[in-house]
Amino acid sequence: MSSMHALAPSAEYPITDRNRLKRRHDRGSYDRCSVHAILDAAMLCHVAYVIDGQPFCTPTLFWREGDMLYWHGSSASRMLRHLKAGTPACLTVSHLDGLVLARSAFNHSANYRSAMCFGTARIVDDPEEKAAAMRAVVDRFYPGRSDALRPLTGQEAKATTFIGMEIEQASAKVRAKGVADDEEDYALPIWAGVVPVRTVLGEVEPCPRLIDGVAPPPELGLYRAGRSLDEGLTEAQHAYEEG
Amino acid sequence: MSSMHALAPSAEYPITDRNRLKRRHDRGSYDRCSVHAILDAAMLCHVAYVIDGQPFCTPTLFWREGDMLYWHGSSASRMLRHLKAGTPACLTVSHLDGLVLARSAFNHSANYRSAMCFGTARIVDDPEEKAAAMRAVVDRFYPGRSDALRPLTGQEAKATTFIGMEIEQASAKVRAKGVADDEEDYALPIWAGVVPVRTVLGEVEPCPRLIDGVAPPPELGLYRAGRSLDEGLTEAQHAYEEG
Repeated sequence: MSSMHALAPSAEYPITDRNRLKRRHDRGSYDRCSVHAILDAAMLCHVAYVIDGQPFCTPTLFWREGDMLYWHGSSASRMLRHLKAGTPACLTVSHLDGLVLARSAFNHSANYRSAMCFGTARIVDDPEEKAAAMRAVVDRFYPGRSDALRPLTGQEAKATTFIGMEIEQASAKVRAKGVADDEEDYALPIWAGVVPVRTVLGEVEPCPRLIDGVAPPPELGLYRAGRSLDEGLTEAQHAYEEG
Repeated sequence: MSSMHALAPSAEYPITDRNRLKRRHDRGSYDRCSVHAILDAAMLCHVAYVIDGQPFCTPTLFWREGDMLYWHGSSASRMLRHLKAGTPACLTVSHLDGLVLARSAFNHSANYRSAMCFGTARIVDDPEEKAAAMRAVVDRFYPGRSDALRPLTGQEAKATTFIGMEIEQASAKVRAKGVADDEEDYALPIWAGVVPVRTVLGEVEPCPRLIDGVAPPPELGLYRAGRSLDEGLTEAQHAYEEG
């Protein structure tokens, strides 16, 4: 784990014009751990890409393996057809953690964690990498589950396209604090405070057509009712990485 | 409210190559009500824009007035400097509503609501429109609150830039149902079901420096503990529209 090890990735992503934070430097960082923690707490990301000068912002499920990001969709989708040759993309994850009501309009804010990742998105066409992605898209979220499923058919494999992108640059941005008013405003008789926001899991709704006696699988324990989705996804990522 | 009224906006956004759904047509629509409902339930969006061929995907707070979308940031921000001349943008909102575990990898899915809006983003430089935005950025989320705040200073107004974009095309996409397995897979002894996901508000954390006797304002009632953020934001939008 020493950063002196020749093969260890450096602690920070390289900083270029693409990912350099242009404002609120106090909220930002470039280190891998911060970026990965924000990514691993999410299932949904937004990917920006360009077709003929027109930007598109597409929401999609994604997952991370080291510095690789993967997402998937039908080979018919607009984005994927255009990505075949490899195209610059920006994948962003954001978590809204709180509403911040201040004593002035200017100091109203939100608590959040976000990560922006830059790279070149490419279709995964290597058969081994694609087979691994077919398992990962299930097992990253539900560790061990792919072994228990009905095996993939050849037709399903053909109809599935995965996109892979190595993170070339990235940045993380976090606001996680209370009201930050101008010093003289604290004396005003105006209410200020934070409303926390949390994304939580509800009671599982089993499929009404379950075969009698089929018990909930162990991976469902990660997503028990009342837990944060964040926590469940982060724990699932760790379990997935440990194999 | 009749669609025969000459001045009423048509029920659907025009369909062009930009917003035409390329897959899962069964989940999509182009009607204003569906798109607006998804937007109005959110505070956070992701905006895609392009600088020198490089796509950026930026998370930001936003709000809607009719078919106009607004978001804001420091005039120093990368996005805004490049948007001054007006630039194509795509603003997307997504809500994750559930994890869908099926009997095959292929039928794993998520419940979600998303809206993609296309248009030309421009700096709001008309003084009246900017003054209105200064109030709206507070009042859309906290109806009536801007009147109770310490007034904006000239320096704050100068340091604030708003972006406006009229929605030229848009689409909505929704998955809101249970497991959809292949018919023959329902006979398999594999667990399947849905884990609902909800974004909820926590107990308010008042600023520790509140002046004695300052009571929580009425607009905070929209964001009471245990309520969905969705619901609070949707109700706030209605209150804001009713003035």
